[in-house]
Amino acid sequence: MSDSLQNQNGGRTVAELQRRLADFAAARDWGQYHTPKNLVAALSVEAGELVEIFQWLTPDQSARVMADSASAARVEDEVADVLAYLLQFCEVLGVDALAALEAKIERNETRFPTSGNGHSME
Amino acid sequence: MSDSLQNQNGGRTVAELQRRLADFAAARDWGQYHTPKNLVAALSVEAGELVEIFQWLTPDQSARVMADSASAARVEDEVADVLAYLLQFCEVLGVDALAALEAKIERNETRFPTSGNGHSME
Amino acid sequence: MSDSLQNQNGGRTVAELQRRLADFAAARDWGQYHTPKNLVAALSVEAGELVEIFQWLTPDQSARVMADSASAARVEDEVADVLAYLLQFCEVLGVDALAALEAKIERNETRFPTSGNGHSME
Amino acid sequence: MSDSLQNQNGGRTVAELQRRLADFAAARDWGQYHTPKNLVAALSVEAGELVEIFQWLTPDQSARVMADSASAARVEDEVADVLAYLLQFCEVLGVDALAALEAKIERNETRFPTSGNGHSME
Repeated sequence: MSDSLQNQNGGRTVAELQRRLADFAAARDWGQYHTPKNLVAALSVEAGELVEIFQWLTPDQSARVMADSASAARVEDEVADVLAYLLQFCEVLGVDALAALEAKIERNETRFPTSGNGHSME
Repeated sequence: MSDSLQNQNGGRTVAELQRRLADFAAARDWGQYHTPKNLVAALSVEAGELVEIFQWLTPDQSARVMADSASAARVEDEVADVLAYLLQFCEVLGVDALAALEAKIERNETRFPTSGNGHSME
Repeated sequence: MSDSLQNQNGGRTVAELQRRLADFAAARDWGQYHTPKNLVAALSVEAGELVEIFQWLTPDQSARVMADSASAARVEDEVADVLAYLLQFCEVLGVDALAALEAKIERNETRFPTSGNGHSME
Repeated sequence: MSDSLQNQNGGRTVAELQRRLADFAAARDWGQYHTPKNLVAALSVEAGELVEIFQWLTPDQSARVMADSASAARVEDEVADVLAYLLQFCEVLGVDALAALEAKIERNETRFPTSGNGHSME
């Protein structure tokens, strides 16, 4: 867990939210369901639910999705679900998601110099 | 952006990583590709790549995936990709991912009392 | 379209169902939505809904899913949705899905001799 | 299995291809991996690989993807993979994919009269 547990935002760091999710699952005895395999399946299902919001929209319509309050609430809800399963997956495997992303950004800064034309993050 | 930009971890908060991803894309003129619709598609593709690592494993094998250094590196790389696209999506739509997750956890604490038997986070 | 339009099953060939789906969409003026990009997004969303049925099940539970009539109906419904979007995607791009699969099986018979130990179809 | 095993296309019906896939897996002792849960995971992974081809394309670019022979081959290959896992999933659970789709089309013809404006197949 790399980010500080102390902050000025009421405990809203990744580390703190990951801890709350772990406590939440433990209090309900959900550990038996939370194999890494099941959690990545759940993550992909939630990613699909996020895609569903956008599937028939034009690119322009997709950029205006937060202007409608019902759509905005749905987007926020699915973002929360994706992040929740990602953090629970990281918790059971001991992966530091922020450190992994930082390392990836640093590799990509080398792989994709700013003068390049290609487009890919993978 | 809700978590502090100042911390003791070399800038590795969600807010800071989201900023670095935005700067990275802007420096390469990738904004044209980064519609919300495209970014959720990319997020779901990366979630699929994470599932691929686990698709033929038994639950027990899935729990030991970090014991193999090649698998561990692949897991960390895909976690980074999922998080990168989630944060880029949140950036273009102005969604605060940590606030959305905190709100969801609070709703779920009401919906799923600890004496219950069901299992679901959605 | 490679399979016969004439059969003994009331028109239930892939070719015939693909034709009915195309007529169905045309009659409702849905062609504007049915870009290849949108149809693969919809396909992946439906694949996610199929995964959702199985996400928390053990391997053994997953093998018994058709024993419950509500689960069985849900599985059949999602299979129909996945196949519907796959065939609509193939229709708009002129891809012959059965010919593509036959070609793949023939390549795999060469790539994976029966004495081998590996497991993968890709 | 609902469509005829006899046809004029060298055995390229859904029923015949499903049989070849089952024989292929049995000859390699892959049955142990082919739980319904694993097969839907694999299906969703392949759907993701199909989405990947289109993720950064505009709607217009997505409509021209078959004009490039390398992209066309990739599309056909991923279509084959999606269909292969869908049929293997149906095989292990005894689901008749074509009958399921026919039933769905008939339900949708009732649910979406041609004078309607909405767009959805689900």
